[in-house]
Amino acid sequence: MKTWHVTGPGIESLRLAEVDVPIPGWGEVLVRVDAVSLNYRDQLLIANDGYARFGLPFTPCSDMAGSIEAVGQGVSRFAVGDRVINNFNGGWIDGNPPRRDGEIASFGGPLPGTLTEYMALPAEWLVKAPSSWSDAQASTLPCTGLTAWMSLIEIGRLMPGQTVVVQGTGGFSLFALELARRVGAEVIVTTTSATKAERAYALGATHVVDRNDGSKWAEQVKAITKGRGADHILEVAGGRNLESSVAALAPGGHISLVGVIESFDSTFPSVPAIHSFATIQAIYVGHRAGLERLVRAVDTCGLSPTIDSEFDFAEFPHALARLQQGPFGKVVVRR
Amino acid sequence: MKTWHVTGPGIESLRLAEVDVPIPGWGEVLVRVDAVSLNYRDQLLIANDGYARFGLPFTPCSDMAGSIEAVGQGVSRFAVGDRVINNFNGGWIDGNPPRRDGEIASFGGPLPGTLTEYMALPAEWLVKAPSSWSDAQASTLPCTGLTAWMSLIEIGRLMPGQTVVVQGTGGFSLFALELARRVGAEVIVTTTSATKAERAYALGATHVVDRNDGSKWAEQVKAITKGRGADHILEVAGGRNLESSVAALAPGGHISLVGVIESFDSTFPSVPAIHSFATIQAIYVGHRAGLERLVRAVDTCGLSPTIDSEFDFAEFPHALARLQQGPFGKVVVRR
Amino acid sequence: MKTWHVTGPGIESLRLAEVDVPIPGWGEVLVRVDAVSLNYRDQLLIANDGYARFGLPFTPCSDMAGSIEAVGQGVSRFAVGDRVINNFNGGWIDGNPPRRDGEIASFGGPLPGTLTEYMALPAEWLVKAPSSWSDAQASTLPCTGLTAWMSLIEIGRLMPGQTVVVQGTGGFSLFALELARRVGAEVIVTTTSATKAERAYALGATHVVDRNDGSKWAEQVKAITKGRGADHILEVAGGRNLESSVAALAPGGHISLVGVIESFDSTFPSVPAIHSFATIQAIYVGHRAGLERLVRAVDTCGLSPTIDSEFDFAEFPHALARLQQGPFGKVVVRR
Amino acid sequence: MKTWHVTGPGIESLRLAEVDVPIPGWGEVLVRVDAVSLNYRDQLLIANDGYARFGLPFTPCSDMAGSIEAVGQGVSRFAVGDRVINNFNGGWIDGNPPRRDGEIASFGGPLPGTLTEYMALPAEWLVKAPSSWSDAQASTLPCTGLTAWMSLIEIGRLMPGQTVVVQGTGGFSLFALELARRVGAEVIVTTTSATKAERAYALGATHVVDRNDGSKWAEQVKAITKGRGADHILEVAGGRNLESSVAALAPGGHISLVGVIESFDSTFPSVPAIHSFATIQAIYVGHRAGLERLVRAVDTCGLSPTIDSEFDFAEFPHALARLQQGPFGKVVVRR
Repeated sequence: MKTWHVTGPGIESLRLAEVDVPIPGWGEVLVRVDAVSLNYRDQLLIANDGYARFGLPFTPCSDMAGSIEAVGQGVSRFAVGDRVINNFNGGWIDGNPPRRDGEIASFGGPLPGTLTEYMALPAEWLVKAPSSWSDAQASTLPCTGLTAWMSLIEIGRLMPGQTVVVQGTGGFSLFALELARRVGAEVIVTTTSATKAERAYALGATHVVDRNDGSKWAEQVKAITKGRGADHILEVAGGRNLESSVAALAPGGHISLVGVIESFDSTFPSVPAIHSFATIQAIYVGHRAGLERLVRAVDTCGLSPTIDSEFDFAEFPHALARLQQGPFGKVVVRR
Repeated sequence: MKTWHVTGPGIESLRLAEVDVPIPGWGEVLVRVDAVSLNYRDQLLIANDGYARFGLPFTPCSDMAGSIEAVGQGVSRFAVGDRVINNFNGGWIDGNPPRRDGEIASFGGPLPGTLTEYMALPAEWLVKAPSSWSDAQASTLPCTGLTAWMSLIEIGRLMPGQTVVVQGTGGFSLFALELARRVGAEVIVTTTSATKAERAYALGATHVVDRNDGSKWAEQVKAITKGRGADHILEVAGGRNLESSVAALAPGGHISLVGVIESFDSTFPSVPAIHSFATIQAIYVGHRAGLERLVRAVDTCGLSPTIDSEFDFAEFPHALARLQQGPFGKVVVRR
Repeated sequence: MKTWHVTGPGIESLRLAEVDVPIPGWGEVLVRVDAVSLNYRDQLLIANDGYARFGLPFTPCSDMAGSIEAVGQGVSRFAVGDRVINNFNGGWIDGNPPRRDGEIASFGGPLPGTLTEYMALPAEWLVKAPSSWSDAQASTLPCTGLTAWMSLIEIGRLMPGQTVVVQGTGGFSLFALELARRVGAEVIVTTTSATKAERAYALGATHVVDRNDGSKWAEQVKAITKGRGADHILEVAGGRNLESSVAALAPGGHISLVGVIESFDSTFPSVPAIHSFATIQAIYVGHRAGLERLVRAVDTCGLSPTIDSEFDFAEFPHALARLQQGPFGKVVVRR
Repeated sequence: MKTWHVTGPGIESLRLAEVDVPIPGWGEVLVRVDAVSLNYRDQLLIANDGYARFGLPFTPCSDMAGSIEAVGQGVSRFAVGDRVINNFNGGWIDGNPPRRDGEIASFGGPLPGTLTEYMALPAEWLVKAPSSWSDAQASTLPCTGLTAWMSLIEIGRLMPGQTVVVQGTGGFSLFALELARRVGAEVIVTTTSATKAERAYALGATHVVDRNDGSKWAEQVKAITKGRGADHILEVAGGRNLESSVAALAPGGHISLVGVIESFDSTFPSVPAIHSFATIQAIYVGHRAGLERLVRAVDTCGLSPTIDSEFDFAEFPHALARLQQGPFGKVVVRR
């Protein structure tokens, strides 16, 4: 079977390799991978030689939708033909975040990634795909979908009538936009592009604000909310952008820190945070129980993720290039 | 001004009296009452001489939408002309349920009721009415609206994709139906009437089940949810109906006990409740902070309460008679 | 090896049988059972032929402390010699209560019980025993200990200064007493025996009330708490005793329903429950993560369970007889 | 009566002034101030001319224990002679943090401070003092006590067996130490002084670690907890110390950000925070309901705050000087 290998730093180190199809062990299933969606983290790790610490060559990517090809001993959870997606934090079933060691690990490092034709995986690490979504759509759930779901719904307890800020128009922010609108929240989108602003309105954004001029977006959020501030802010940038997020927050509001686009260090002013009882909640995707509930929500509510573009399996480098351009939604690689 | 008085047991004891317009004291406002919605509790107290313990004659009813006519000393919360609704638990601002004594009391007993032309009330007990709703609509929020909101949203933490059961098609159950659908839940309605079943589907019900034959509705809920059961059940009947609610519940599910239509005693089998970690949460409307968030949700989401019928102020006895017939939605008395 | 078998209804159907030592499969370990503590449920199932539906002969009991004798393939969680206890709900790792089917089941029915010399069990269903406790003490944790822990700490969020009611002086109630005192709560114990009252005071009870005369204990709780009521009540009786529990509850209080000593049906008055926002939370022990945290608390805090009496493995029928007499604390069977 | 006035920047601007005793208005009481405890914030505002924005001269300090001297109209909450303490966030009764405007404000800026002989205050802003504590002890509750209580108990949900880190040995950290030990947690104290380390052990600290060499204390916390990290960290420094707090945190752990001793800007590395699902919760004292529960806990549990030193009312500048030296516990000014 074919598999993508990272062999060193940079996009030019990618190789399409030929390897044996794995054989599922006790408690495992063989999955045919049908679609893989890309995440900012994949690009970051490739650019910075981040996979080297897991041992090269390394198969990248963390999201997958596929179908069960064979079932190992001791598996009753799935049958051949079932459509499945992976739980990014393999082995985290439910409840409190576990230690990231022996029992729990994440796909695409330290666990091998999903950009391959077949995987042998513990049945416990998979959930059924939504019946109403295509493979490409379903592949956006394990990271992007579940991160938005945990941030807004399971941890954030978003209520109808609250105000959410999403930053930019990547796949995560657009899925969060859709989810928040679906449960009755107002959503303010920050962007630097007039074209993307229009498209965000078309997807249901209540307001779009310009973040070209630094920290000014926080003032705009304050103005839109009549001085109150936003109840939930999905922070994908980090760095000093967190300062604006704190400034834009309502009393008792919630910042979900999910990304590091701007910087690996995050900085914020303590006094305004303290005065507003700010919660800064760092979130690393979620657990299998949350993913199962998200799948149920997808099938019940008719959600529909925004897919920017799809690429053939062999075209992965082009998909990565597209991701670097700042897509409007998710970039997916299909078999 | 005119006010309705209960002077003894039964609907025939009602009198339309003439009394002085009250004068707002320190911290109070004078409210012109524009609409009052009826609740099952009003009917129950009138039928059973329930107001006698508060001292007769007594003004009934608990819900009100009106406007500020005058402002007393020390009030900065409202200005003349503001449209307002009352917080049923006068004095309960936020947080944990208080003791029902000195500081907290409920409208329509022990506090005087709302079925009158003017009231002098502490400004702290009122919130702004939704700007997008009429007075009649707004008058359904203090009891019906807030009870559904607390049950499903603030306490129940309803998530998209979950399953809710609402019992019957009174004003409370229909508002809960609308609210639960708005946040992406499936809703199963129980009813004994084919006509009402059709109307419930028209309002968005996912399923309607027949509760004519006793406890069978629980089996239908189990069948619809493929054996899983419902995540939230809004129990308005009590008595042995609670047994069916426990039987219909999903593991970790939530029963909100809000009504006593069937009996003042509630009975349920302990073992099934224990096996499913059932939560039976009794709910007596809610706090002012919840009501403010509900008003925000109403204006953001475009919710629309189902009003069965409206009556003139002088026709209150006819409104009560209509309530006894089992209306489809709320019965409102307008000035 | 020796194992106890229930072969029909009643204590006289118990047989001490000889069976093969099991061999651990993939992911399993072989545990030598060193101590088993008895629960009211064991006695109830034996008396009422309750094991018949699981297939006779059936090994009873649900609690166990032991040590790892051998380790099967794929096990990294334990090593030979580790002292362990079982998680009553085998397979429930953390988070929301699961469906009781394929993946999750409880020891002592439907899973085979612990009253045997060796068991082959999935390593995932076990946790390390507290290092500071004996086997007999540790065997009280899986049911009694974890039920009290989930009720008061993980779900009940007991705070210092709150008031707890525990009913009677069985092993569960006494462990709850100790735990609640340890975190700074006041504890009121109900009992019918003057001797047990004295012993309860010796264990730290703040107050002991007499429950000989029916529902009067609720009035005593109200009097002790100056009219406020108790914040947490651990309901072990059910039936109409729940009515007293509701009457004795503070606003926003929490009743943990964990037992059925008085009746399988529980009944309470709806209106007082509603007025006080009562939460009736049914609890069926707990998850492995909770058990792990409880073990950590045991080792940190120096808790010490009350053991009424210990019996040899061969004397199980005498242990059962002691349980029926109403012991003061736990009854344990030791190898 | 006498009152302390800040008239400009610095300790040398303090004046002991003579003003009229205030007269309580509607809903107010007259309180004789018997003890005032100092907080780091007082010193910071005095040093940095921080009171100027509230209008000079300004009475400093935020904590107070006193007794009711007279009761205004409309007050039923207290009677003359009641011993009381103030709720720092005047007007915040319970529930979610409010906006800091009209209705809610904090003592010692923007509300006038407590360092005066008499205050006329809304009865709603006060709670009864613990009956078991002296005035000096009770005066430590409004800021220090309630901040520790909200951080660890009401928001942090500290459980027995968890590990807490407190930074330094000021009044806040020592009260948090005592409270956390009282509910069965392990407590690690960071300090730079060997003498204070000994005294911290004497107060019950499980471990004391040296924070002289920068970020190394996080490694020591990791070592003590066998790699797991601490469940709760009370961050009083801010700045880059937050980086160490994130490094020392267990998965799903909780950092309560309550102070700005090191810097007004806080910085932390995003990736480790995300990997461990860190919650950084900024906390600005708390609400009246929390303070009432804390008083109940104090009287139930026999807590005892560490008081470093007491000064006469006229010696306030000396008390401030003592605060600047780094006291071991609270500094109190008594009438």
